[in-house]
Amino acid sequence: MATGTTTPRDRLLTAAADLFYREGVTATGVERLCSVAGVSKRTMYQLFPTKDALVAEALAATGPATNAAFLPDDAEVRPRERILHIFRVLEETAERTEFAGCQFINIASDLRDRTHPAAVVAREFKQQLVDWFAAEARAGGAADPDLLARQLTVVFDGSASRVVVYGSDLDGLSVTTAAALLDAAGVH
Amino acid sequence: MATGTTTPRDRLLTAAADLFYREGVTATGVERLCSVAGVSKRTMYQLFPTKDALVAEALAATGPATNAAFLPDDAEVRPRERILHIFRVLEETAERTEFAGCQFINIASDLRDRTHPAAVVAREFKQQLVDWFAAEARAGGAADPDLLARQLTVVFDGSASRVVVYGSDLDGLSVTTAAALLDAAGVH
Repeated sequence: MATGTTTPRDRLLTAAADLFYREGVTATGVERLCSVAGVSKRTMYQLFPTKDALVAEALAATGPATNAAFLPDDAEVRPRERILHIFRVLEETAERTEFAGCQFINIASDLRDRTHPAAVVAREFKQQLVDWFAAEARAGGAADPDLLARQLTVVFDGSASRVVVYGSDLDGLSVTTAAALLDAAGVH
Repeated sequence: MATGTTTPRDRLLTAAADLFYREGVTATGVERLCSVAGVSKRTMYQLFPTKDALVAEALAATGPATNAAFLPDDAEVRPRERILHIFRVLEETAERTEFAGCQFINIASDLRDRTHPAAVVAREFKQQLVDWFAAEARAGGAADPDLLARQLTVVFDGSASRVVVYGSDLDGLSVTTAAALLDAAGVH
């Protein structure tokens, strides 16, 4: 239970983001969610019309920080290095015992419904990464920046999936693979 | 309900494989599973000690056919083409409305526990694909067959994840990406 000076709304969003990531959306019942947040079900349903709405809002609340954590700072200016930075952070993140894969893919997979409000939110955050890759690929002179951006996203997501299945054993795999695709696209 | 001349055991395994893939392991309660299989809960627990055991056995039963569906026949002898065949089948499979991603990754992600019996089974089937890629990469003269095999698996899994998030819009992405990595590894 996490009470203190935070509002019931904040506690619900924090508990939801944590439980949905660690245990899954379907696996997290409303009872457990309210218990961890220290909020009654009555209060929860006053704040969020449905569990689905809470899932979408919790993801929307944590998504920006999740994506931002992978981005390089402005000190790194070369597009190739800026792109590879993302994969270096992924390798580091995947070493953490609490890493359970990409939260956006996990939620989309868990919900099995691309029209669910939270699946729409997940797609928007994945698209932000694709768009960021495309802008950097363009700045780096890629032969086909949009194709390279989609390829890099595939490497990101496939690497995260590998950790879900095998545990943390990337050992540079995502960086090496991204670098090979940057080479192929002429981003040196 | 699917009865007929099949045994309760077969019906449970068939219903489990279908429901776990379409709706998820956590989302599928024992009540619903038994209802779809047309088997009583008492009978189910006589045949399988736990739901977890049923999950593992259902995956073990469908896994070989799932992997085999992606493999080329012996008429194709060139390693590069044999490898690309897998990605062409993935692109075709991803076009089907019932495609919900890689069942092995989905189950590993759903369970959030790499020691779960079904997660162990999932990992074994993923490893079969890695080993197959490595053997073909070796036959094709790859500079580092084991690295290429892991890279190709990342492309396979990342492409499947993309479809989970976006729907079927690969448009050759997985084939193009695999081909770029084959080029980089010297498999022509």
